[in-house]
Amino acid sequence: MSDHPFRLPEGPVDLSAIDTAASPGAKGGKKRGKAALFALGEGLSDLQERLFAEGRSGSARRVLLVLQGMDTSGKGGVLRHTVGLVDPQGVRITSFKAPTDEEREHDFLWRIRRALPEPGYIGVFDRSYYEDVLIARVRAMAGPDEIERRYGAINDFERELVEGGTTIVKCMLHISADTQKERLLARLGDPAKYWKYNPQDVTERGLWPRYREAYELALERTNTEHAPWHVIPSDKKWYRDLAIGRLLHDTLVAMDPQWPAPRFDVGVERKRLSDETPLS
Amino acid sequence: MSDHPFRLPEGPVDLSAIDTAASPGAKGGKKRGKAALFALGEGLSDLQERLFAEGRSGSARRVLLVLQGMDTSGKGGVLRHTVGLVDPQGVRITSFKAPTDEEREHDFLWRIRRALPEPGYIGVFDRSYYEDVLIARVRAMAGPDEIERRYGAINDFERELVEGGTTIVKCMLHISADTQKERLLARLGDPAKYWKYNPQDVTERGLWPRYREAYELALERTNTEHAPWHVIPSDKKWYRDLAIGRLLHDTLVAMDPQWPAPRFDVGVERKRLSDETPLS
Repeated sequence: MSDHPFRLPEGPVDLSAIDTAASPGAKGGKKRGKAALFALGEGLSDLQERLFAEGRSGSARRVLLVLQGMDTSGKGGVLRHTVGLVDPQGVRITSFKAPTDEEREHDFLWRIRRALPEPGYIGVFDRSYYEDVLIARVRAMAGPDEIERRYGAINDFERELVEGGTTIVKCMLHISADTQKERLLARLGDPAKYWKYNPQDVTERGLWPRYREAYELALERTNTEHAPWHVIPSDKKWYRDLAIGRLLHDTLVAMDPQWPAPRFDVGVERKRLSDETPLS
Repeated sequence: MSDHPFRLPEGPVDLSAIDTAASPGAKGGKKRGKAALFALGEGLSDLQERLFAEGRSGSARRVLLVLQGMDTSGKGGVLRHTVGLVDPQGVRITSFKAPTDEEREHDFLWRIRRALPEPGYIGVFDRSYYEDVLIARVRAMAGPDEIERRYGAINDFERELVEGGTTIVKCMLHISADTQKERLLARLGDPAKYWKYNPQDVTERGLWPRYREAYELALERTNTEHAPWHVIPSDKKWYRDLAIGRLLHDTLVAMDPQWPAPRFDVGVERKRLSDETPLS
């Protein structure tokens, strides 16, 4: 995936220089974008089933899609519209909240290890261990040395996953502060969306520049060859969903999963079935 | 759901008297049946999101859909086509295989408790604790006294779940032995389906009458008012998917989940956002 348009280049990251409202490679706007996403569904489904079949037949390969972004950036939308295109049987979604007391007693990767996808699965993390270098930095939940240690621990952890057969797809859903404001106001304007609104979100929003800085540092320090970051322009919901759909699709195409060879003699099995004595 | 067409009546069960190829309440065959299922999607999605919102706001309510049936009866198809209609964020699927060594060291319900849906979720069990009175009986993995104990333990367990806010929807996917034979032969006729075929399936098939008897007993003994069984005619795949879609839809309609009231002052929050100082 090294040539993917949203692959973050190596080096220092300046998020303000990356357009949140762009829609490269998508002609015709929202309606055609939604149709293009829908059209991806069949191919995605086929590739996912092959991956799943491989997993059931001894392959260790699997995918981990990591979704990060500010509140309202659309992680839930990607789960519904993009991840929702593939067979839910082969998908394992984990939404990470603030750690529990038990989780806090362990290293920050402890709860992550318990949520990793098994062979053949597409695991999806809605937020992730990256919170431990994002909110943890902004809110000083950990000291500078510990944050520093975590960048390295994340890179080592991701290398271990890759070596164990996991393809990691990391996406930062990039929105503007104005877009977030619009979306928060929309939540306040619709009783069906009140439940998504938390007054704390506005408090966190007040720290926008510090979150941007924390993201820039985290992206730079963990943008490795084995697990690169993608920054997805996400002001347009339809484009965000389509871009991640294409990235997931391209990832699976590159993995090229194959239907496993039978581990039995097809002719013998056909004959067993044909020759059976009546059952009832 | 007590008036649902597939609700199993109380008393002894005779599966041979229940038509596996029926399609009551579905006019026009496969094409219209698939369209009818697709048309359920929007309503299902809305109801599921309301349930999820309730769960995030303190309600203990949740759904547990239990899918049981012989090999090839279509549990996977229901997951893909019916469960796949709702937002995967709000669904937790668990596929139960033969228990691991660790699981075997505990009571049969131990691993089940670890897989129960949280508030607001739709949990789906692809096979379940019912295997512990089905294959366990047919294969004499447990003695008659223990099987007998388990029927009671299951009823107590399900009552506990219901009292804790879970609505349990139990479906037995009912197919004929001929349909299973066709489907096994179809798997042997398509390299994309070899991975689903296991020679052991034909061995188990040889025990068809004993499995039927085990199902009949289990259904009779666990067909309670608080967690009734539904026997779904499943020779027609499209009808099976539609029937379970309707059952799930009717279940959610009866639960009537509501958007939670805001736990903040909407006007105050709007003003906080409008009055904020520039962020960058």
